Amino acid sequence: MEVELKQMLDDLQSLRHSSSDPSLHASIEKLQSRVHRLTDLAKAVPVRRSRVKDMSAEVVDSNPYSRLMALQRMGIVENYERIREFSVAIVGIGGVGSVAAEMLTRCGIGRLLLYDYDKVELANMNRLFFRPEQVGMTKTDAAVQTLSDINPDVVLESYTLNITTVQGFETFMSSLKNKSFCPSKEGSGVDLVLSCVDNYEARMVVNQACNELNQTWMESGVSEDAVSGHIQLLIPGETACFACAPPLVVASGVDERTLKREGVCAASLPTTMGVVAGLLVQNTLKFLLKFGHVSPYLGYSSLKDYFPTMEMKPNPQCSNAACLERQKEYIIAKPAREAAAKAKREAEASAITETPLHADNEWNISVVDDSEIERTDAVSSDALPEGFVHELPSADEFQKLPAGTSTDTAIDDLEDLRKQLEALNADQ
Amino acid sequence: MEVELKQMLDDLQSLRHSSSDPSLHASIEKLQSRVHRLTDLAKAVPVRRSRVKDMSAEVVDSNPYSRLMALQRMGIVENYERIREFSVAIVGIGGVGSVAAEMLTRCGIGRLLLYDYDKVELANMNRLFFRPEQVGMTKTDAAVQTLSDINPDVVLESYTLNITTVQGFETFMSSLKNKSFCPSKEGSGVDLVLSCVDNYEARMVVNQACNELNQTWMESGVSEDAVSGHIQLLIPGETACFACAPPLVVASGVDERTLKREGVCAASLPTTMGVVAGLLVQNTLKFLLKFGHVSPYLGYSSLKDYFPTMEMKPNPQCSNAACLERQKEYIIAKPAREAAAKAKREAEASAITETPLHADNEWNISVVDDSEIERTDAVSSDALPEGFVHELPSADEFQKLPAGTSTDTAIDDLEDLRKQLEALNADQ
Repeated sequence: MEVELKQMLDDLQSLRHSSSDPSLHASIEKLQSRVHRLTDLAKAVPVRRSRVKDMSAEVVDSNPYSRLMALQRMGIVENYERIREFSVAIVGIGGVGSVAAEMLTRCGIGRLLLYDYDKVELANMNRLFFRPEQVGMTKTDAAVQTLSDINPDVVLESYTLNITTVQGFETFMSSLKNKSFCPSKEGSGVDLVLSCVDNYEARMVVNQACNELNQTWMESGVSEDAVSGHIQLLIPGETACFACAPPLVVASGVDERTLKREGVCAASLPTTMGVVAGLLVQNTLKFLLKFGHVSPYLGYSSLKDYFPTMEMKPNPQCSNAACLERQKEYIIAKPAREAAAKAKREAEASAITETPLHADNEWNISVVDDSEIERTDAVSSDALPEGFVHELPSADEFQKLPAGTSTDTAIDDLEDLRKQLEALNADQ
Repeated sequence: MEVELKQMLDDLQSLRHSSSDPSLHASIEKLQSRVHRLTDLAKAVPVRRSRVKDMSAEVVDSNPYSRLMALQRMGIVENYERIREFSVAIVGIGGVGSVAAEMLTRCGIGRLLLYDYDKVELANMNRLFFRPEQVGMTKTDAAVQTLSDINPDVVLESYTLNITTVQGFETFMSSLKNKSFCPSKEGSGVDLVLSCVDNYEARMVVNQACNELNQTWMESGVSEDAVSGHIQLLIPGETACFACAPPLVVASGVDERTLKREGVCAASLPTTMGVVAGLLVQNTLKFLLKFGHVSPYLGYSSLKDYFPTMEMKPNPQCSNAACLERQKEYIIAKPAREAAAKAKREAEASAITETPLHADNEWNISVVDDSEIERTDAVSSDALPEGFVHELPSADEFQKLPAGTSTDTAIDDLEDLRKQLEALNADQ
C-alpha cells in the first residue's frame, strides 16, 4: 500500500509541473494532502519486532527475554539460552496444540514444526489462540501468521497435511528425520514430538512414527465433556507406548468429521485446554532444559481439581512391532545404563563437601537424594492412583499367560475399547 | 481510510469535469485506477464477526458457541446461557489477568471490567495475550482491542487506573457498585472480582474493597521464580480474608517498579501463568454456573507437579475492620442458613425415587451425598496439606489468647512477612 501511495504522490507532482492553471494547482494540493493523510494511516498498521541475535538477561522494557533469562538467576534453569537449539514438532494445532505452540514461541524455542489439515472456523472461537478474522484460513497458515508476529526469532515450519493418510505419513516421517536445523544432533531431527490431536487414529499414527524413529514424545488429550484432560510422556522401549496401554482419560476417539455429520459435537472449554497446554509445555521445558521432575503421566479432573499421576511400563506383548524392538534394545542396554548411572552417582558423591551449606535448619528442610526417589518410583510404578482402574492386564500378567493364548483382541477391538473409555469418562 | 479514498475519488471526478485537456484526463484516469486499487487493499483488512443475539447449540462451523452449549447436553452445566447475565471484574491485566480475560471472553461472559495502569512492553512478550505491535499501548486499551475482536458480544469496561491511589480506589469502588448492567442483581454490580495483581499492596486494596462491599472474590498469584502459583476463593465473613492469613505461595510483594529500578526482575513463564489463569477461570465457571466443586484454595507447584488444596477459616482477630463486621454477620445468619440447608436437603431427599436408575453397577460406582461432603470439609478445614506450615496462629489459638495480648504485629509487620514468604518460596 505504501508503494502505491508513493507512486500516487509522484503522479500528482508531475501533473502539477505539467500545468500552470492555479485552480488545478489548488486541487492537486488538496489531493496531495489527502495522500499524505492516507500514508500516515497506512503507517499505523503494526510494525513487527525485529529479530534478536542473542538472548540477554538485561532488565529493560525492550528485552523480550529478560523474564525468561531470570530463570537462571533464580536458580531454576542452568542455561536457558539452550532452548534456541531445540526443535519441537506439534501434531494437531487445535485447542491444545495452538496454545502449546504459542507458549513455546514466547519461550523462544529454536524451531517449531506444525502439522494440521483443518481450517479455522467460528466454532473454534471458544478456545484460545485463533481469531475470528482467521476463519477460512488453514490452521497451519493462521498459526504461522500469529506466531511469526509474536516472535520472529523462532523458525516455523508448517505442514498442511493429514498424518493418517499414506502420503501425509511419509511427509511427516521425512520432516521429523530432517536434521538440517541442527546437523550434529543425535537421533531424529527433532527433540520432542507433542501430540495434540483429538482422535484415537491420529494418536496411533504418532505412536507408530515415534516408535519407528525411537523418538521421545508427549501425548495430550481432553475429554469429550470438556472437564478432564491429561498429558503423558512416552519414551520408546522405556515407558508404555500408546498401543501398550492407552491412557485412561482420553477423548473417546470419535472422529470430528463423524460428529459433525451427525449434528452433535463434543464440548470444549478454553480453561481445560489452556491448563492441559500449560502442563504439557511445562513438562516440555522441564524435559528439554533439565529442571524439576518430568511427569510420566499427569491427569487433570477439573470438577474436583484432582491431579492423578502414575507411571506405565511397556507391555512385552504390545501389538506394535516397533515398540517390541525398542523394548528389546532397552533391555540389552540395561548393564551399560546402570554402569553409567553408578559412575555418575559416585562422581556426585565425591564432589559433595562434608560441611553442610546451612548449619542452622530453622524450617526443618531435609534433602532427599534424587537417585533414591528414582529407584522407589521404578518399584511402585504398577500402583494406580485412587479412582483409576487398569484397562488392560499388566505386563506381568501377560508374561504369565500360557503360550498360544491370544490377548491381542483386547487391544485390537478398538470399538470395544472406545466404549470402555467413554464409560470411564462418563463416570468421572 | 475508506472514507478518505471515497472523497479522493470524488475530488478526481470533479477535477476531470472541470477540465477539457485530454492529457489531464489520462493522468486523472491513472490516478482513479490507483485509488480503486487502494480501496481494494483497504478492504482486505479483516472484518469483525457480527454479534450473536442468542446462544445456540446448533452444530455448524459458523456457531461460536456450539462447543460451550454442548456442556448442557453432556450433563455438566444446567443452563450455560446464564453466563451472559454475569459481570466479572479483573484487577491486573498482566500475565494471568489478560489470559483470564480472554478465556472469559471466549466463554461468552456478559460483562468484563478491566483494571490496570501499566503499558504493554516487549518484556511482557514471554507471557500469552499481548502482541509486539501493542507495545506502548495501555494494557487496558490493548486488551479491549483484542477482546472486542474475539467476541463482540461481551460488554467490556476498561479502567486505566491504579487502585492503590485514593482517586483510583474511589473509581474502583464506584465501578463495582454500578448496577446498570443488571439492575435486579442483589449486592454489588459484579458477580465476582478476580485479583490478578503482582504485589502485596494491591492485593490488600482488593481485599479492602471486597470486605467493604461483601463481595466474593478470587485471588491468584505466581511465585517470583515463575514455577509455582495458586488460586484462592475469598467469601467475606465465611472464609479467611487476605488480611486474616495471606496465602503461603505468593509473589513476594516487591513492587515491579522497584524491581526495575534495581536492574533485577522476577522470572515468569507463559506455562505457569497460563495454568494459573486456566485454574482461576475454571473455578470462576464452576462458581458462576454451579457445577463441580469450587476449590477454596488450589496451589500449583510445577517442579513436582504437586497441587495442594486447603481451606482457611476467618481470623476473629483479623486486623481488617470490615472483615470483622462480615464475620459477625455470618455468625448471626447461621441459624437461618442451617434451616435453609436442612429444608433443601429434605426437599431433595423426598424427590429421590425409591428405584435406582441403574440396576446393575458394573463399575462399582457409589454416589456420595454432596451435603455430607460439605459437612466433612468444614470439620477438617484446619488440616494442612503436606509441605505447608501455618504462617499465622489459627483462629482457635487466637481465641484462647488472654485478653489484652496483642497479636496484630504478626500481620502488620509486612516487611517481616514478606521475608518469611520469600524464604518459603525459595525453599519450594
